[in-house]
Amino acid sequence: MPVLVILAHPNSGSFNHAIADTVVRTLKECGHEVILHDLYREEFDPVLPGSEIPKNAPVAAAVEEHCRQIMACSGMVIVHPNWWGQPPAVLTGWIDRVLRPGMAYEFDEDDSGEGVPRGLLTGKTAVVFNTSNTAEQREKDFFGDPLDLIWKKCVFEFCGIETYLRRTFSVVVTSSPDLRKQWLDEVSSVVVKYFTPHRK
Amino acid sequence: MPVLVILAHPNSGSFNHAIADTVVRTLKECGHEVILHDLYREEFDPVLPGSEIPKNAPVAAAVEEHCRQIMACSGMVIVHPNWWGQPPAVLTGWIDRVLRPGMAYEFDEDDSGEGVPRGLLTGKTAVVFNTSNTAEQREKDFFGDPLDLIWKKCVFEFCGIETYLRRTFSVVVTSSPDLRKQWLDEVSSVVVKYFTPHRK
Repeated sequence: MPVLVILAHPNSGSFNHAIADTVVRTLKECGHEVILHDLYREEFDPVLPGSEIPKNAPVAAAVEEHCRQIMACSGMVIVHPNWWGQPPAVLTGWIDRVLRPGMAYEFDEDDSGEGVPRGLLTGKTAVVFNTSNTAEQREKDFFGDPLDLIWKKCVFEFCGIETYLRRTFSVVVTSSPDLRKQWLDEVSSVVVKYFTPHRK
Repeated sequence: MPVLVILAHPNSGSFNHAIADTVVRTLKECGHEVILHDLYREEFDPVLPGSEIPKNAPVAAAVEEHCRQIMACSGMVIVHPNWWGQPPAVLTGWIDRVLRPGMAYEFDEDDSGEGVPRGLLTGKTAVVFNTSNTAEQREKDFFGDPLDLIWKKCVFEFCGIETYLRRTFSVVVTSSPDLRKQWLDEVSSVVVKYFTPHRK
């Protein structure tokens, strides 16, 4: 079972790309098959059309491929900057389009859509790496860090994923090369810890 | 000064559209000039390109128009469903692209981008209407309602907007026509309260 790596940053020289490169390399060193999606590079269209909302609706070929992969993977590593307390739109829309009913979650037969769904991605591992230009304490005290609620509660628990870690690196804009190297070492350690064959 | 109405839902028969229609009609009845942006209908591209990130970068014509309007408006009403604790991607990306440095917020001259910005949209009013298929108590207790942090703290306070109201209508999928009519009456009352000429 492969591991998915989902990257959402427009600039190929960004620290997000350095994180994703480290993730991919470390996963391969651990013997994993890796599928990398650089959503900007593949020009993923994040706008969910109305026609794709119904449960068994036909979806675009690119979306269908993502759906198949999310169901078949052992886990995923998601890399993105914190923009306005949210992922960049290209990734928000990846959630909107790829995490479909009947694939990522399911309502009971007699439920009209207002009930508590059953997650279908159980047993998978999810790791999120974020970058930010806001100091950690200010993010918690002033902004309330909505990204943690979004990934942990609204996305992963909703879909049945319990093994979850999120790590935010900040402040990136003023960070030294040495600090960035330390951060990439930490990325590598986290990946080894969460995706060793022993944990499966 | 006009009032902006920003709508993000793919289906023209949606309750979100009914809310936006009510908002536009009520604003006009109050004597306001109204600019409606149905982001799906105008096919707003929500993917911020790397080239638009620098402060004084040239931006796409459609984005430039939105920027001018957000600076010139007296306030805005935003209408969208709660998808995964976030707005639909088309609206997430409207935030990413339209709320630009030098227009919506500003860092001090000697700041490298990690400091506390100064909001430039001070004095404007913001109202957000959401729809959801999750009961209010479950949204608060289980999901933690990240949309409230996103709009209140991460977007509006960041940009200097203090007059803010958010109202979520739920559960929409099982709501009766009578309840929806009550909700639309409430929409109208909120708009009158927040956008009467007396408040300016």
